[in-house]
Amino acid sequence: MIEKVFASIITIGDELLIGQVIDTNSAWIAGELNQIGILLKHRIAVGDNREDILEALETEGKRSKIIIITGGLGPTADDITKPVLCEYFGGKMIVHEPTLAHIQHIFEKVLKRPMIERNHKQAEVPDVCTVLMNEQGTAPGMLFEKNGVWYISLPGVPHEMKWLMQEKVLPMLSEKFSGGVVVHRTLLTAGLGESFLAEMIQDIELSLPAHIKLAYLPNYGLVRLRLSGWGNDAHSLTEEILTFFNLLKERVKDYLIIDEDIPLERAIGKLLVAQKATVATAESCTGGYIAHLLTTHAGASAFFKGSVICYDNEIKKQLLGVTEDCLQQFGAVSSPTVEQMAIAVKKLLQVDYALAVSGIMGPDGGSPEKPLGLVWVAIAGPKGVKTQELRFRFTRKRNIELTAAHTLRLLHAAIVENK
Amino acid sequence: MIEKVFASIITIGDELLIGQVIDTNSAWIAGELNQIGILLKHRIAVGDNREDILEALETEGKRSKIIIITGGLGPTADDITKPVLCEYFGGKMIVHEPTLAHIQHIFEKVLKRPMIERNHKQAEVPDVCTVLMNEQGTAPGMLFEKNGVWYISLPGVPHEMKWLMQEKVLPMLSEKFSGGVVVHRTLLTAGLGESFLAEMIQDIELSLPAHIKLAYLPNYGLVRLRLSGWGNDAHSLTEEILTFFNLLKERVKDYLIIDEDIPLERAIGKLLVAQKATVATAESCTGGYIAHLLTTHAGASAFFKGSVICYDNEIKKQLLGVTEDCLQQFGAVSSPTVEQMAIAVKKLLQVDYALAVSGIMGPDGGSPEKPLGLVWVAIAGPKGVKTQELRFRFTRKRNIELTAAHTLRLLHAAIVENK
Repeated sequence: MIEKVFASIITIGDELLIGQVIDTNSAWIAGELNQIGILLKHRIAVGDNREDILEALETEGKRSKIIIITGGLGPTADDITKPVLCEYFGGKMIVHEPTLAHIQHIFEKVLKRPMIERNHKQAEVPDVCTVLMNEQGTAPGMLFEKNGVWYISLPGVPHEMKWLMQEKVLPMLSEKFSGGVVVHRTLLTAGLGESFLAEMIQDIELSLPAHIKLAYLPNYGLVRLRLSGWGNDAHSLTEEILTFFNLLKERVKDYLIIDEDIPLERAIGKLLVAQKATVATAESCTGGYIAHLLTTHAGASAFFKGSVICYDNEIKKQLLGVTEDCLQQFGAVSSPTVEQMAIAVKKLLQVDYALAVSGIMGPDGGSPEKPLGLVWVAIAGPKGVKTQELRFRFTRKRNIELTAAHTLRLLHAAIVENK
Repeated sequence: MIEKVFASIITIGDELLIGQVIDTNSAWIAGELNQIGILLKHRIAVGDNREDILEALETEGKRSKIIIITGGLGPTADDITKPVLCEYFGGKMIVHEPTLAHIQHIFEKVLKRPMIERNHKQAEVPDVCTVLMNEQGTAPGMLFEKNGVWYISLPGVPHEMKWLMQEKVLPMLSEKFSGGVVVHRTLLTAGLGESFLAEMIQDIELSLPAHIKLAYLPNYGLVRLRLSGWGNDAHSLTEEILTFFNLLKERVKDYLIIDEDIPLERAIGKLLVAQKATVATAESCTGGYIAHLLTTHAGASAFFKGSVICYDNEIKKQLLGVTEDCLQQFGAVSSPTVEQMAIAVKKLLQVDYALAVSGIMGPDGGSPEKPLGLVWVAIAGPKGVKTQELRFRFTRKRNIELTAAHTLRLLHAAIVENK
């Protein structure tokens, strides 16, 4: 077996430590490294503080062969990563002419503003690094080497960091560090909690060899089952994982949504495209969130036609023809109302499937008969319309997300039923 | 000056290291600790691996007085946090009767399923910890103490972790550790990049005392300016920060959105409520995302009436009366089309303000005349309708988010203009 190659991520910035910003970069970097067989060992966040940065460089350098550092490269006084790196690697700051020319170009052609001294400073780099030109912004990437360890400093702005990783860093890492291969296969399941799934597949899990791991990833009532293997040869590892993957797939078939690592809404899109069918939504309490999910991924125009977001009851009546009688007798959050909404939007937008939701997301608005978190959902399809009651008890944001996830599961089931 | 109290967060789980899951817990925990004067020093992520967990416990215990540990408490084989904690703190596993009773109750009353052996195991805890009863789920929280350091282990499921933090952990920490006070004040600005803002307020920044820091937090074309101070006395610190805050506010007034740390869409909601005005959206390329943002926060029904999501051109014609002529002559992504959409949805939903967007979000669909990332936006208000062209060049997801952010900025400007 070849040696595993480990990496660490150091994220720098006070905003990460006081909770003002969620770190989405690390997950993305981890996923990309993983694809080329480099295993993330450690992820560490420190503030904009000289001592903490120096200590992190020192300790992570002993732990991993590759250290990815993000953040703290901006033009303002709180950004100290560059001088601290310069100090740690024993260099002095010099102007990097190609970067200066690039920044000048951005100011002249894109921003159409004169450069100020701070922007000049962004073209300075320690003379002991290899510059990774950042065509997406003004802060250059930098590569340092010390005792065989690579330290790569990247801006924290997500799209700049991603561009530098994809265009510069990942190709270099692939060439320099041969980290073996990592293969993942994922099943998306719904309807059974992780402990029951674990019970159902226990014998398969116990039979896995040491280099293949099974993980349970629960999220919004769905559970992903992920097999991850590590080895030398992509072909034989893929075959080996496939054997266990097929065993799992057969075992959980009654709860299987799809045998790929894609979100539920993409699984729905694939089914609709295969059926040459279309969908629309009528949303009250989710305020467009379900439409947003359905249109997040490329290719949505093949199956998604549109929505009526009827937050106000007047819009329910006026655009969807929900009757005053129905609203008076049963209320906006009721089975008859969502049934009328789903049937109306299906007809109005001339689609094959329509969903409708109405509920009380909180934090205000509940009553003894209609408590906070009560939701009614309707799915209208070629075989008629079905309604269902849901109840949640979380924050507004989570109630909206859970309503969307459960409604999409019901939509998925209706489409599958119609195959 | 009293001593600063530092905390570390250790997140446990392979899913965080292979990039499958974005860690939103840490930012939330950091923000909550910060509110009670406890400063996050370090945040570290390790896999489901005994040695790495033990090492993290050891090193963070030397660094901080408070260690918050999340994840790895589930019922499946990849969850090893509990036995590793038991080993590290030298205990043995025992059944915690109140937790067992609670789990039995959940299975009988909520899940209506028989318990299996794995669920029994969730009631086991090391006999050297104080159990923090988790009323939101089956995995108990645990508090360990060693050499004056508190180690608090919580489930990784966000709503369970948050409940335990708010109900149990934060009150205990407030009482046990007096960490001084931390005060933040934030200005939300738009229209000027961070280097130009920095230039504009340089003298104020340089005049800040050592215990008050200024941070620039750019996001989607907006920049937050955050003053953070640390001290003993809440009242005097608040007063001191206010002085600098007012200086900044006056200096950046031409670019100021709001003098609070709230998202742009909430600033818009506040303005609309103050004007007793309402809003609606007509969205093509954003697919409901702007409506979702406007309805994310409590109280949206006071100003948001609804939307027409017209992804398909047929819906633009049918529901919003966009003319065939207009679509033929100018195309769906054009100034005349969004103008017709905005005027129509304003009239149809009887609102004071309406916005309309149509664009090409990618990755497919561009042409030489209408390139990828081209967006047209219209804002209709009491003073008429304005359109604007936007151009983005990022991924589909980012293009959608930037379109929403810029459109909301234009809406904000239109509402302010009408004050």
